[in-house]
Amino acid sequence: MIMQKTAILHIQEYPYCIVTGPDALTLRIRAAKDDIDQAFICFKNLYDHTSEFQKVEMKRILASALFDVYEATIKVPLKHFKYYFELIFGSAKMYYTSDGFLEIVAPENCFYYPNINSDEILALPKWAEGETIYQVLVDRFFDSDPSNNPPQTKPCKAIPDRNTYYGGDFGGIIAKLDYLASYGVGIIYLSPVLKSPSYHKYDVEDYYTIESIYGGKEKLRELTEEAHKRGMKVILDGVYGHCSCEHEFFRDLCEKNEKSPYRNWFEVYDFPVSVEKGNYNTFANVVPIMPKLNTANNEVIAYFAKQGAYWAKYLDIDGYRLDVADEISHTFWRQFRLSLEAVKKDALLLGEIWNQPTQWLKPGELHSATNYKFRQYTLALARNEIGTKKYASLIEEHLMTTSTMQQNYLASLLGSHDTLRLANEIPERKTRFLIMKLMLLMPGMPLIYYGDEISLAGGKDPDNRRAMDWNHMLTKEETEFREAAMFRKKSEILKKGSLNFLTSEEGLLVFTRELAAEELIVIANFTDVSMDYEIEDEYKLVLGKIATIPGKIRLDAKEIAVLQMDKANNTLEKIKRREKG
Amino acid sequence: MIMQKTAILHIQEYPYCIVTGPDALTLRIRAAKDDIDQAFICFKNLYDHTSEFQKVEMKRILASALFDVYEATIKVPLKHFKYYFELIFGSAKMYYTSDGFLEIVAPENCFYYPNINSDEILALPKWAEGETIYQVLVDRFFDSDPSNNPPQTKPCKAIPDRNTYYGGDFGGIIAKLDYLASYGVGIIYLSPVLKSPSYHKYDVEDYYTIESIYGGKEKLRELTEEAHKRGMKVILDGVYGHCSCEHEFFRDLCEKNEKSPYRNWFEVYDFPVSVEKGNYNTFANVVPIMPKLNTANNEVIAYFAKQGAYWAKYLDIDGYRLDVADEISHTFWRQFRLSLEAVKKDALLLGEIWNQPTQWLKPGELHSATNYKFRQYTLALARNEIGTKKYASLIEEHLMTTSTMQQNYLASLLGSHDTLRLANEIPERKTRFLIMKLMLLMPGMPLIYYGDEISLAGGKDPDNRRAMDWNHMLTKEETEFREAAMFRKKSEILKKGSLNFLTSEEGLLVFTRELAAEELIVIANFTDVSMDYEIEDEYKLVLGKIATIPGKIRLDAKEIAVLQMDKANNTLEKIKRREKG
Repeated sequence: MIMQKTAILHIQEYPYCIVTGPDALTLRIRAAKDDIDQAFICFKNLYDHTSEFQKVEMKRILASALFDVYEATIKVPLKHFKYYFELIFGSAKMYYTSDGFLEIVAPENCFYYPNINSDEILALPKWAEGETIYQVLVDRFFDSDPSNNPPQTKPCKAIPDRNTYYGGDFGGIIAKLDYLASYGVGIIYLSPVLKSPSYHKYDVEDYYTIESIYGGKEKLRELTEEAHKRGMKVILDGVYGHCSCEHEFFRDLCEKNEKSPYRNWFEVYDFPVSVEKGNYNTFANVVPIMPKLNTANNEVIAYFAKQGAYWAKYLDIDGYRLDVADEISHTFWRQFRLSLEAVKKDALLLGEIWNQPTQWLKPGELHSATNYKFRQYTLALARNEIGTKKYASLIEEHLMTTSTMQQNYLASLLGSHDTLRLANEIPERKTRFLIMKLMLLMPGMPLIYYGDEISLAGGKDPDNRRAMDWNHMLTKEETEFREAAMFRKKSEILKKGSLNFLTSEEGLLVFTRELAAEELIVIANFTDVSMDYEIEDEYKLVLGKIATIPGKIRLDAKEIAVLQMDKANNTLEKIKRREKG
Repeated sequence: MIMQKTAILHIQEYPYCIVTGPDALTLRIRAAKDDIDQAFICFKNLYDHTSEFQKVEMKRILASALFDVYEATIKVPLKHFKYYFELIFGSAKMYYTSDGFLEIVAPENCFYYPNINSDEILALPKWAEGETIYQVLVDRFFDSDPSNNPPQTKPCKAIPDRNTYYGGDFGGIIAKLDYLASYGVGIIYLSPVLKSPSYHKYDVEDYYTIESIYGGKEKLRELTEEAHKRGMKVILDGVYGHCSCEHEFFRDLCEKNEKSPYRNWFEVYDFPVSVEKGNYNTFANVVPIMPKLNTANNEVIAYFAKQGAYWAKYLDIDGYRLDVADEISHTFWRQFRLSLEAVKKDALLLGEIWNQPTQWLKPGELHSATNYKFRQYTLALARNEIGTKKYASLIEEHLMTTSTMQQNYLASLLGSHDTLRLANEIPERKTRFLIMKLMLLMPGMPLIYYGDEISLAGGKDPDNRRAMDWNHMLTKEETEFREAAMFRKKSEILKKGSLNFLTSEEGLLVFTRELAAEELIVIANFTDVSMDYEIEDEYKLVLGKIATIPGKIRLDAKEIAVLQMDKANNTLEKIKRREKG
């Protein structure tokens, strides 16, 4: 019996080696799928030359079509570590060390983690774990006060163009807080609220002025107060990758050129700087009205670190969604976080990241990221481009790119102001709400783009940003989605539980969510016919609709159901399921 | 034909993804040994939705018994990247993407490197590449001025204990600069020079006073001036993990306890603080006279960042060897470097690191590390615990943990003040000098611990720190070592060239060093009998001793030879050698 040595991976790097406490290291090792039977960490203090190594078994926490990932946390009170892995396959045993595979391990063969420093501990705002986020485009949500509308405001039924205003404002959001509460929303994420020449406000003209057309800073403070009263948090959209060409610093640069104190705040290709020529770096390289900020410049970093903290304190907001977070320097994020935490210890930093988020989710940087890979894989599943087994494998491999602690912090989404509307991506209602409910039942912070809950349609930008329809009557699927959202709101296990896919028939997606002694099983039928799932455990149906047949449950096409398992009584059955898995 | 998919590794992390220029990314992919035939990177600007992907072939740069590592550098002038890998095996082709293995790649499947920020560019002091370092314990080297000796100074022939002083001083090093030049030394690395109650001075009492018993700050400045005149650089030992319990900050803490402004500069377990009780964290957990500094504390960081820069400027030194670098916070190193570079752009930061250096060698942190793994593997080879093939594989896997740019910056060593003397580790002279010469011919910055060049003996600390013997007469091997050191001094290819092991007979170690159009072949015979190596290329013997036989060269036992190849004429032959490899 030969182990697949080349598949074994351990690096002393997030997420394979993470400091998760003052004296705790969480370690992972990856192996080929079903290749090893058990994995252990053997460890002790780096400076301990006499004691035996301690030994802890690792748990298989992720499993894709190619890989198993094992994890365990080790503690050494004096914070100096040496460790190696013991891998069991069949009746054989092998050690994995900093010198590769060995049959006998000497101290110098160990991996060393020489010391834990307090700046490298992974810390997360506990309140945010698993909460449902609702994304509001302020202008498009609800107009509570026509007196502050700009003159060019249009009626809400018009299809938007790139200059349309509908008059939405902070008062409108306050008026609709009970609506948001009816979806179990935990976090309201507002589109940019700082003074800006555009309706979307992703081109900020003044980082120290809240838009008057939305109601100004006092109204925004009222919004956070009212949200807090209802147990909801508020996060703002922090736009630091670029500003408006109308920003005074950029105007100073256009005027004084080489002599401007802001010369190195931007990336100028040649002088004189000109918006017409666009001879400087911009958002997406092609938008001269949005000059790109040089976020590796220490002056820029200091300015925005202070600004972010200023509004967090003044407005009592609970964190930021961070625009183009993956284009901004790591130095910027580390400083921004330190500055923010000095005024608001538990503030959430959620970065807009379109691909693997690994680089930005490390200790001291962002807590969380938009999970666009969830959208990519889930749309592919909904469209039958991939099957349920491939889907489970892709989700697991994506989870391999972040820490276990952060799994319930990734913002799973199916649409945003930067994508087609979900109603346009997946026009078929039952399938669309199947994946909307799936988003609520999977790990992460489900992120609802305003209006998706009522099937708001829209093609490419700017059509994907239509006004909210407040006269809509909920369909059956939309009502079920709201019920599922409220179910999630009350479920600690959905917010904080782990994920375990159970191998199943192609077309059925089955997974558990587990937390301490509790267990839920989620079963979704992605086929066009009813499907049976064998189950001998004792269970209680807690969400969805099933037919029961002895030893089986039956789901109609495109249905999803949640069963609460009697974990204490089902241990054997569970082991059996795992073995099938 | 099936590729070993589970062996394929690419992470967006040092050293698999490194920013090596303002618009350049250097990417690696790892595959199972001899599994794939070719690897390409397909790439373009992240925001470019119209052009074709560009394609560049990757070069196999490292190869161990288990893995091949391929590398290439890609450039996108606007600094936003998307890319994927094309892998060729036999007549088949496969793409490796952020979604795993695919047969067709859509833009969202690519890996994204969304933007290069200037703070993440890997930058190295060019002058240091491949230079020979000579480690001096100041007290043990040469006493030029008995008037500054402490009263307890002993004669140099005494075996040292932990309180022995021999009177060595800066003037003594100045007096011996020509000696150091005769070994081609490029960098003189001095043991700690700041005021301290011990002879070794790793417990600093005052970070702003240079030891008077060594001659004080003016004499040290004279030393750097004199060294610079001879083209040699000087680096100091920066000791920031701990200080002396006599340091005023720690004394203040012992006096004022909770009320001391230095309360958070150290890690106190309980109050009152007491050196007798040792109720605080210390160097190695067990040395109360060396209280451990809290290097994640911003005040500590600011104090030492300023101090490091102060002496660099005042003394005109060229960098630091950094004590217990792997126990000090990453925030500390980033700030220390910024502060140092503000006064000395090209200063070298070489960390004391005993295991894999990956975590500390990233852009913005340290440039280089002590390579104790080189020592571990080379001693094992010298003792026949491993063979030459295993040795080559271990060296290659170790090089996989750092960037290609830094290969010639790793400080290869065979002994230091923290190990047994090499003469005690490997008493047999021929073998000892074989590996001493090997150290000079391999990539890296060879680090000579004072006296190893003259076979100075010594057991465990403090015996490994005997006084330098200035009356020693060089043996044949020692003379050859000095010649080899001078050969290296003049060889750009040894300082800057790449490494390529050639598969060979067990017992023979054969590798090339290559730089642009130049190539050297190094052949070392680790057996106890003479060995032949087949070679049909045209070559010139440039170091060592061989017997020539048609189509072969013959090396005596424990001999090492360097051949300069006529690269232009040997292309075909080289390809043939590679194929055998």
